[in-house]
Amino acid sequence: MTSWPWQALRYAAQNRERILTELSEFASIPSISGDPVRSADVRAAAEWMAHRFRVLEFQRVEILETAGHPVVFAEAAAVGKPAATVMVYGHYDVQPPDPLGDWKTDPFTATQVGDYLHARGVSDMKGQIIACLAAVEAAVSTGALPVTVKFVVEGEEEIGSPSFGSLLEKHRDLLSCDLVLNCDAGMLGSECPTIVYGLRGMYECLLAVRGPVRDLHSGGFGGVVHNPIHALSQVIAGFHDEAGRVAIPGFYDRVRPISSEEHEEMSRLPLDETFYMEQTGVRALWGEPGFLPAERVGARPTLDVVQVKAGSPKSAIPAEALALVTVRLVPDQVPDEIAALFKRHVACHVPETVTWDIPEAWGYPPSITDRHSRGVRALAGALETVWSTPPVYHREGGSINAVGEIQRVLGADSVLSGFSLPGDNVHGPNERLHLPTWDRGIAALIHFLSNLASA
Amino acid sequence: MTSWPWQALRYAAQNRERILTELSEFASIPSISGDPVRSADVRAAAEWMAHRFRVLEFQRVEILETAGHPVVFAEAAAVGKPAATVMVYGHYDVQPPDPLGDWKTDPFTATQVGDYLHARGVSDMKGQIIACLAAVEAAVSTGALPVTVKFVVEGEEEIGSPSFGSLLEKHRDLLSCDLVLNCDAGMLGSECPTIVYGLRGMYECLLAVRGPVRDLHSGGFGGVVHNPIHALSQVIAGFHDEAGRVAIPGFYDRVRPISSEEHEEMSRLPLDETFYMEQTGVRALWGEPGFLPAERVGARPTLDVVQVKAGSPKSAIPAEALALVTVRLVPDQVPDEIAALFKRHVACHVPETVTWDIPEAWGYPPSITDRHSRGVRALAGALETVWSTPPVYHREGGSINAVGEIQRVLGADSVLSGFSLPGDNVHGPNERLHLPTWDRGIAALIHFLSNLASA
Repeated sequence: MTSWPWQALRYAAQNRERILTELSEFASIPSISGDPVRSADVRAAAEWMAHRFRVLEFQRVEILETAGHPVVFAEAAAVGKPAATVMVYGHYDVQPPDPLGDWKTDPFTATQVGDYLHARGVSDMKGQIIACLAAVEAAVSTGALPVTVKFVVEGEEEIGSPSFGSLLEKHRDLLSCDLVLNCDAGMLGSECPTIVYGLRGMYECLLAVRGPVRDLHSGGFGGVVHNPIHALSQVIAGFHDEAGRVAIPGFYDRVRPISSEEHEEMSRLPLDETFYMEQTGVRALWGEPGFLPAERVGARPTLDVVQVKAGSPKSAIPAEALALVTVRLVPDQVPDEIAALFKRHVACHVPETVTWDIPEAWGYPPSITDRHSRGVRALAGALETVWSTPPVYHREGGSINAVGEIQRVLGADSVLSGFSLPGDNVHGPNERLHLPTWDRGIAALIHFLSNLASA
Repeated sequence: MTSWPWQALRYAAQNRERILTELSEFASIPSISGDPVRSADVRAAAEWMAHRFRVLEFQRVEILETAGHPVVFAEAAAVGKPAATVMVYGHYDVQPPDPLGDWKTDPFTATQVGDYLHARGVSDMKGQIIACLAAVEAAVSTGALPVTVKFVVEGEEEIGSPSFGSLLEKHRDLLSCDLVLNCDAGMLGSECPTIVYGLRGMYECLLAVRGPVRDLHSGGFGGVVHNPIHALSQVIAGFHDEAGRVAIPGFYDRVRPISSEEHEEMSRLPLDETFYMEQTGVRALWGEPGFLPAERVGARPTLDVVQVKAGSPKSAIPAEALALVTVRLVPDQVPDEIAALFKRHVACHVPETVTWDIPEAWGYPPSITDRHSRGVRALAGALETVWSTPPVYHREGGSINAVGEIQRVLGADSVLSGFSLPGDNVHGPNERLHLPTWDRGIAALIHFLSNLASA
């Protein structure tokens, strides 16, 4: 058994060019879940995956229908008694490629340029799915898969996974597992293997401030009615205090404190002021005082107005002003509680000359994983074997809906990692995948499967 | 000579249906100056006017070219020694008809419904131009025009008259006049003939607040960079104090005080709190304390952000946030001075975590007319003759660029009036013209010409 991972690694290396060709083929399908025109392409990507699983003679391959785009399910049975059942989560859908004019290559023709493969979705996350598949194929083909693997690959991650929760509920038995591998998080640098153990949750809402019944000429009415843009601006200006703290009473009450051990670790991450200054090009950083940048992004909640829609160039006082508000939550904040605090705060701050309401709102909870779990230990060892350095542990500022839903419905924790890099232009033009890192990723995933056998 | 106006009035009454047909024809030309696709229609409206002037055998008819849409010039010589030279200012361009779906009739098919003619531009201001033309035609046709009349009808009023000032400069001699009749102001009610003696000026600018070099994922960066939407909202919230005064230091310094006589008159205008509550549907009025609503709109300066453009639904912290700011000025404020005060205020209020600039700005001065001038007296008498009540004197909250430009270049004051009503839906869907008021308007304009002979 000890010689196994090396056979599998050799298999992966020998088949590397074919696997890369398959990734290129997969990445060339424009499976843009947010574009209704592309729904046939989204399904084509699901079919492509199912076909691959069938070619590899997985025991069970199914395309599971949802209210939206389908989920691909495929199960590979362990050789002998399974050491565990591992769900490999992924998503085969991608972001739209716009602005198209900024691409140097066609976004849906995978193109190798030096060490990189360029295409929309190649890093987020078709390359990651193919890496997982390559590792399982290598294990299966060398006759030694130690765990049962269930691939669950959805087609709606980029639009917020609206159907995923009910799919899990419907297929609870089929999808049951001990732990989940999710390679949709990334690395902090090519020499910095990373395990994400916390994700922020979300409360997002549309806040509408309404004034006059119709748009009013700013000459004929400027001076007698309160402009909803001014009233909304007052409310937005009141979301934070001068120091940068969220000013909503009770907002931080449930936030789990950062332990001194965690603080120590976070201060060692390559996410210092210089990193954020370089990434953003701002004159000065900003945020809640008393916390490291990495803590403010990963372990502290934040509130950002991500869009204001109000008025027109017509020189009128508009009838309404809209703000789209995104609140990123951390353990142990609860979306419904934050929604209530938010509403109470707005009610206190909207002037009486206008009205307001929240026509849309949604949210999902934050998540945090036990860093000493079997899955995390197996992956940490695998990453250290390949990179010769232990992984860093990171609390990611973003949100992955599926992680919370799997925890809620199936009770299984996710091990979050992945082999995308900060410069991969995920969601932007010229998305790319660093192939040497991807190769190391495949190797690490083979070691992960092997480690689970003995963990 | 005393019998003349009655002959002209009879002529106008006898030709009323033909003149209404001409207005319907004129109003059916979609001369939308703000829509590049419509530039041929804008020119067609100019040609239509020129053709009318030629049919009426005006002494001189010219289409004067500008950098933008042309200006129609037509001169009708007085019979005998002219008592004065009167410019009749007008604009043949109209606003876009959107939202199209809210129209009950086709915006460019003039449709009579009861006492109203419906079409885009029929009130603002094609109906007003045709009323002026009908009065002059009646005077010419009855052989007794007592003044020289110069029609100057531009095609860019609805886009801020960008070419008008330089046109006046270029044709200074051709356009010279003693006074200007401008029927682009309206009446406060159908039984309330109105002379406008003050117009607010304008300082308008685009304020840009810039943060990170690119849009940033609000999960990955929320908490470390200052969101330009928040910074801009702080600045907007700081434009007014809690009471509703503009908080820019020095803003009110040059504002001419309202005399007790003027205050007395303004308190009698049908522009009280009830009027503004009904017109706007707001819960409560708002504005600078210590002034009547009519004073706040007409005789006090105001500041309104008419548009905020920032962000997208993509849940990103945007690279920039833009506000379009409209400042309405009153005598003796100076646009350049207000621009400087505005900039100084913004510089003090933008946080240091972001940058800002003003990529676009423009402005023009406020204007106020001598209420005892010859033109005002002639028109006041004419209105009183027709309505059997003296006109009210009103300071309009809006701005008409041409009035200030004519004063600046030609040194001539405008007499501002017109026969549009508050319910005419000017700039909105279902614009209409109240024909009985329009008929009275034509009669009043004939009396105006007559009064000028003896004034």
